[in-house]
Amino acid sequence: MEKQIKHKDLLGLEYLDKDEINLILDTADSMKEILERPIKKVPTLRGKTIVNLFFEPSTRTQSSFDLAAKRLSADTVSVSTKASAVQKGETLLDTLKNLDAMKADAFIVRHWASGAPHFLAAHTDAAVINAGDGMHEHPTQALLDMLTMRQRFGRIEGLNVLIVGDILHSRVARSNIFGLTKLGAKVTLCGPPTIVPEEFRELGVEISYNIDEAIEGKDVIMGLRIQRERLEEAYFPSIREYRQFFGITRSRLKKAKENAVIMHPGPVNWGVELDYELQEERDSLILDQVTNGVAIRMAVLYLFIRGEKIHE
Amino acid sequence: MEKQIKHKDLLGLEYLDKDEINLILDTADSMKEILERPIKKVPTLRGKTIVNLFFEPSTRTQSSFDLAAKRLSADTVSVSTKASAVQKGETLLDTLKNLDAMKADAFIVRHWASGAPHFLAAHTDAAVINAGDGMHEHPTQALLDMLTMRQRFGRIEGLNVLIVGDILHSRVARSNIFGLTKLGAKVTLCGPPTIVPEEFRELGVEISYNIDEAIEGKDVIMGLRIQRERLEEAYFPSIREYRQFFGITRSRLKKAKENAVIMHPGPVNWGVELDYELQEERDSLILDQVTNGVAIRMAVLYLFIRGEKIHE
Amino acid sequence: MEKQIKHKDLLGLEYLDKDEINLILDTADSMKEILERPIKKVPTLRGKTIVNLFFEPSTRTQSSFDLAAKRLSADTVSVSTKASAVQKGETLLDTLKNLDAMKADAFIVRHWASGAPHFLAAHTDAAVINAGDGMHEHPTQALLDMLTMRQRFGRIEGLNVLIVGDILHSRVARSNIFGLTKLGAKVTLCGPPTIVPEEFRELGVEISYNIDEAIEGKDVIMGLRIQRERLEEAYFPSIREYRQFFGITRSRLKKAKENAVIMHPGPVNWGVELDYELQEERDSLILDQVTNGVAIRMAVLYLFIRGEKIHE
Repeated sequence: MEKQIKHKDLLGLEYLDKDEINLILDTADSMKEILERPIKKVPTLRGKTIVNLFFEPSTRTQSSFDLAAKRLSADTVSVSTKASAVQKGETLLDTLKNLDAMKADAFIVRHWASGAPHFLAAHTDAAVINAGDGMHEHPTQALLDMLTMRQRFGRIEGLNVLIVGDILHSRVARSNIFGLTKLGAKVTLCGPPTIVPEEFRELGVEISYNIDEAIEGKDVIMGLRIQRERLEEAYFPSIREYRQFFGITRSRLKKAKENAVIMHPGPVNWGVELDYELQEERDSLILDQVTNGVAIRMAVLYLFIRGEKIHE
Repeated sequence: MEKQIKHKDLLGLEYLDKDEINLILDTADSMKEILERPIKKVPTLRGKTIVNLFFEPSTRTQSSFDLAAKRLSADTVSVSTKASAVQKGETLLDTLKNLDAMKADAFIVRHWASGAPHFLAAHTDAAVINAGDGMHEHPTQALLDMLTMRQRFGRIEGLNVLIVGDILHSRVARSNIFGLTKLGAKVTLCGPPTIVPEEFRELGVEISYNIDEAIEGKDVIMGLRIQRERLEEAYFPSIREYRQFFGITRSRLKKAKENAVIMHPGPVNWGVELDYELQEERDSLILDQVTNGVAIRMAVLYLFIRGEKIHE
Repeated sequence: MEKQIKHKDLLGLEYLDKDEINLILDTADSMKEILERPIKKVPTLRGKTIVNLFFEPSTRTQSSFDLAAKRLSADTVSVSTKASAVQKGETLLDTLKNLDAMKADAFIVRHWASGAPHFLAAHTDAAVINAGDGMHEHPTQALLDMLTMRQRFGRIEGLNVLIVGDILHSRVARSNIFGLTKLGAKVTLCGPPTIVPEEFRELGVEISYNIDEAIEGKDVIMGLRIQRERLEEAYFPSIREYRQFFGITRSRLKKAKENAVIMHPGPVNWGVELDYELQEERDSLILDQVTNGVAIRMAVLYLFIRGEKIHE
């Protein structure tokens, strides 16, 4: 009997259990084989309709979902969402109900408001896939991160993962914390105290404000993008100072485990969170993460739309 | 022998006869069966090319046409039409001729100028489908409205239909008047005299300026969207006053026939043309209209492109 | 044994030899047959992914490439490139590397900077197709121009081609000069000295500043679009004066060969580079150029992606 996801929607890794996360990762492994074929296409989701509802612009994530849908032969419709039409929750719901009445099978939702995908999921029988909501979760990013780690190390359990940067505002960090701890990794957060609050300890992670100490013995060093607008909000004094105290450099990496890897959700501010000299680093998995992103999204679309079996 | 439409283009319901309208509605019934299947896709228009030429933004209508095309396996190309390039009729025609030379099979045209689709239709052998032109016609909207009525009541002939709102500026009202009267329904228009001019009587409809009287004995109550910009043009004094005199409320609905239904082309200004309390009304067919929109557009694309037979 | 292109990328006609250009033209002839079929679609590039990277807006060229890709059953992804994200070469390369990691098979690149496609081509194993770069080359436009000439005259060799207009800023002129001279045509350039510099003689063409003399004995008269912004840069005094001295009119055309044809890459400024009276001219090949554009782009995508054989 084929395993199935027990949820209609993928709203966050907070809501999935260990078996469900592993099912997605295992399915993504199968999908990755399709991506290695000369003809990278299967008829699995033929006749299914996937609606992109991106209320924040996102070239990378939207292209990745779009390619995943096309490689499964699904049809996609993208609804352009001008800021003006998004002002009222009423309108957001109206937009969803209309598309739902056109018989969509899944909605891919990115929204600047935390919780927007939950709100929509309650009003449709179609699957709602969270592609990033405010400062809440970005589950497919964390899933592709975990797939990338599992491919390199053969396991997630017992890995020592360091996440460096603006944890407070990061939906990527939050999803990784939920997913990694459920699968038995040990997560440490590092960054200035203003953007790495003590409250995160409640999620079962360690916190350090000294990167040179924190990096010791780690298998994975994950940098997060520093949003320059946070500077204006006075979360930290300057890019120069951030880089000096928390920038990931080759010399700092030497303190990690010998086969440690660098990861980053992209786009990288080279010279800020990752030093320029790491651009050609052979232990960087940044582009593997991108490739795995398509495989994870194929797995997620397949499992949540519950299409035909993947094998042709 | 299969029935066929006798026109190259769908420019308005004014130009179709009763048999042609019924042929489109009957074909849409077949299309609706496809939409109920697990795999909502047929190869009917494979290899055909449909060009979206939307000179006015329209998420709903464009998504509906787009889905209709995809479910028939046609290829679609959308041309972004910045206001700047549309200034001169010369450029509009040039755009068409170029796309025509690329061997398009149909153009879906929405334009702010009444008559623009007619102008284009005269310069191409491809089918031109009017997706709304100025204050003239919006034939696929009226067709989906009629399909929705026919599904509910089993017939159009003899139905008493009340259309309430800004008739003067409404291409939806105009198309419905042409279509419904041809199929034997009795149409009554209602709204403030400034936007429900007496001249409409010439189209074979009744006019009332008192909604409480007009609603009596009606089978279908169709609200039209009140454009807030009309207020500035002084067509009526205030939203509050419009709502008081012409808003459709549950208490007013009680004067209609017992099994009367509410319809609206969307998007609704809840609390203006339809009262908030009608949002959950079980006799509202608003979302059925949306579903039927895809079926009608599949039927229109099929019949006007004259593709392969619908049966696989 | 099937002939193949010996290059990974199509960056310009400067880099192709005569055999390669003829291979593309011959392949386009086969593609044109597909465009004449009722079902204009073949499965040649099924499962291949083509990314549109247009850093300059272009309705015509992008639609043409898009249709070409769809008629070969390839999947397309369009990345919207806001000016802001293009400022730094770093970001341009980062965008490419990300899409490359998603396993794209070809990138169609239009960029305002001459050489941008070369820069990208060096960083990906996928095929890079130049869809126009700055003032450098626009190879598919010149290929479709040559296909159009070959269809009309049965050959390129020995044809007398006059190109009139702003040669200095024209990537179309540059690509045509390279392609036409390689295939043995005799090219003459004509226009005001400020925008038809003497240096072009080094490319093996003739130059004339007198259109009435230059047009004598020509088989092909190709007009180029006059960009009105060049006026402000003082390259020539006025549209009126340009038209008087270099506009292509019916009376001037009489000095060309009897069966001479008019060509233009579009969009035409009617009344400037071509006189209004030529709009209905039976010897204008302007729309044939557009049709051939789709065939040429199908041939280019097929040959450079090296898909399955074209014959089903």
